[in-house]
Amino acid sequence: MRLAALTPAHLSIDASGLLGSLEELARINRQPDGSCCRVALTDADRSGRDLLVRWMHELDLDVRVDQIGNIFGTYGSGLAAKPIMIGSHIDTVSTGGWLDGSYGVIAGLEVIRALKRHGMTLPSPLAVAAFTNEEGVRFQPDMMGSLVYAGGLDLQVALASEDHDGIVLGDELKRIGYAGEFPCGSRVPRAYIELHIEQGPILDGEGVPLGAVENLQGISWQEITIHGEANHAGTAPMSARKDAAQTAAKVISFTRELALRMGSQQLATVGSLHLDPGLINVVPRKAVLSLDLRNPIEAQLQEAETQLSDFLSALSLKESTLIETKRLARFPPVIFDAEIVRTIETSAQMLGKPIRRMTSGAGHDAQMMARICPAAMIFVPSVGGISHNPAEHTEPEHLTLGANLLLRTVLALSEKIQFL
Amino acid sequence: MRLAALTPAHLSIDASGLLGSLEELARINRQPDGSCCRVALTDADRSGRDLLVRWMHELDLDVRVDQIGNIFGTYGSGLAAKPIMIGSHIDTVSTGGWLDGSYGVIAGLEVIRALKRHGMTLPSPLAVAAFTNEEGVRFQPDMMGSLVYAGGLDLQVALASEDHDGIVLGDELKRIGYAGEFPCGSRVPRAYIELHIEQGPILDGEGVPLGAVENLQGISWQEITIHGEANHAGTAPMSARKDAAQTAAKVISFTRELALRMGSQQLATVGSLHLDPGLINVVPRKAVLSLDLRNPIEAQLQEAETQLSDFLSALSLKESTLIETKRLARFPPVIFDAEIVRTIETSAQMLGKPIRRMTSGAGHDAQMMARICPAAMIFVPSVGGISHNPAEHTEPEHLTLGANLLLRTVLALSEKIQFL
Repeated sequence: MRLAALTPAHLSIDASGLLGSLEELARINRQPDGSCCRVALTDADRSGRDLLVRWMHELDLDVRVDQIGNIFGTYGSGLAAKPIMIGSHIDTVSTGGWLDGSYGVIAGLEVIRALKRHGMTLPSPLAVAAFTNEEGVRFQPDMMGSLVYAGGLDLQVALASEDHDGIVLGDELKRIGYAGEFPCGSRVPRAYIELHIEQGPILDGEGVPLGAVENLQGISWQEITIHGEANHAGTAPMSARKDAAQTAAKVISFTRELALRMGSQQLATVGSLHLDPGLINVVPRKAVLSLDLRNPIEAQLQEAETQLSDFLSALSLKESTLIETKRLARFPPVIFDAEIVRTIETSAQMLGKPIRRMTSGAGHDAQMMARICPAAMIFVPSVGGISHNPAEHTEPEHLTLGANLLLRTVLALSEKIQFL
Repeated sequence: MRLAALTPAHLSIDASGLLGSLEELARINRQPDGSCCRVALTDADRSGRDLLVRWMHELDLDVRVDQIGNIFGTYGSGLAAKPIMIGSHIDTVSTGGWLDGSYGVIAGLEVIRALKRHGMTLPSPLAVAAFTNEEGVRFQPDMMGSLVYAGGLDLQVALASEDHDGIVLGDELKRIGYAGEFPCGSRVPRAYIELHIEQGPILDGEGVPLGAVENLQGISWQEITIHGEANHAGTAPMSARKDAAQTAAKVISFTRELALRMGSQQLATVGSLHLDPGLINVVPRKAVLSLDLRNPIEAQLQEAETQLSDFLSALSLKESTLIETKRLARFPPVIFDAEIVRTIETSAQMLGKPIRRMTSGAGHDAQMMARICPAAMIFVPSVGGISHNPAEHTEPEHLTLGANLLLRTVLALSEKIQFL
């Protein structure tokens, strides 16, 4: 009760500081079309990191860089104690928006700035984390920094990752000056909270300004290769063809039917398809397509994978084409910590603002941190659901509200934790 | 009756000469994988042309190059008289085989060589034609030389054609030394006969060594562009998507159903498809696909086009995607001259060899020449139906047989013509 009693009624983050910092970070290597291009471990990423570290020092935070380049700025004494951690990432896709990732990190700094302004310290240290290479554009896998931190990927394997040009991640990390010495995973947080734009249409569509993210979908990525037989489009009888494009069309249609049949939580997307040789007058001998399946319930995701597999076996026979599948990525669904989710909800109510529970469709560092500590997320609306795009936008009032909810949630969690 | 009476029973073409010339021409710019690469109006095309012209001079033919670069070598007196013309092309696709086109031209020379060896002349001149740019790989349209010769394309328009690098066809024609002065179309043949490999599976599959081609399919080429809406694969509900790949899959499936429903003469091929942005986790905003429809009956081809158009209109509404179509090429079916087809059949019977009437699935110079004179084609089997491929092959005995049928057909036609 002590903290709540001490919390000034007017305690809130500085909206102009939040927006100003977001805009300043977004200006680094901004492209003519307005997109942000700070791909992990490039010079632009270094510039973003340098700015972030400067801000952390200005706030007198204890700044540490770990072996995979994750940056932590910690407020409050007792660095040996387990911190509450606020985090996200500041790398972007090559044509990214100004908010994806950066918003959660900068809002974390603003939370600390607000606490300092009111002379408040918390019972636990409060750390702001910026994880390395969340987007996975240049080096795979994505969410790499948090995955390594949470022990899900060996540090040396991650450092040995190569980009398309054979450049090694560890070398790039040294080159840009962010190969730190702080051991990965050495400080396990008491709780991890990630504030992020939704990157989807739900909050914006429903007019609800806040989301308490209670779980995160499982993701299954496959590459499906169909081997048919090339033939002359003018001479090969329809009945004698082994047409990879026709087989691919059946696969594409099936994935949507499957998702619709399984209900609204199942998503299925064929985002990429290549035909070989890809000529107007040649029956395609090969089709390579990607499939993205998502479901918040692991059993259902497995059911979708099984139904697909059965379908492909039957289709292969029917079409006389050979079908191969390759797993590209597989993350099980994550259920976030119920207590933190409730705390987020209660804090929103204290702010007098509507909030809805929701599922995250996209992957986030929070899902990796959930492996080692209680974690949850706060979402704010994305206008039109658009993200990974220069048109990515959230109204300033929603950005400010989200940061204030983060502040209130941190205070409420601190209060609970001190009595644990 | 005079010619038949004078024809030596043992008159036949020289198999080793035919095969030797085919192999010699194929060696020009042959690629490591065995493919022939003599794309029209390249240096390799010039080398092929130079070899052909040398052979024509060795046979004492009257050699003329016309304004679009078509090469004619004429045997026999009376150059002012209308010739019987044997022809095809010697350009190749970039990974072509050794027979497509070249076979018909070289067999024509061997026909003349056989006549000379037996001291025979014909009542009409006999011309061997090699038409410019039949393949249409670098400069469009394909079948250009014969199309211009037959008056279907203005000479100046053809000469102004540009390749992908903006290089002008007329300039290339001059550069390789084949910008001739002989006026296009100035000599209309009495009859045109083209000997060609089938480039399809029918003769090889049925074990029939010869085909009398009585017609040629109509071709309708369209580009279909589907405009959907890009979305995050992890957040956009299935029901709210405007997924260009899903719409494309419906189009692909429909084209096959349409062809199967319309019967064996209707062919439909989607050979190329591009998704935009083509990323695994983004619902495609755009799909661009090619459609190749063929039918030997114009009314049926139009019916297929109409049914497709109706389907696309309904599909566009159902899928909430915008669908645009662009016509890329349209050639009506060609019905070859019944009298020549009968003469080909009778000549095969005189050789004691089985022959079947058939439709050409591919386009050929003969379809252009059919605009200005009686025309027909002779096919020999393609092993496995394979063409436009280094594996393209026809057994030497079939190549020799086809050339002998060409010789007999020319003699039989000459006999008929002299009494007209």
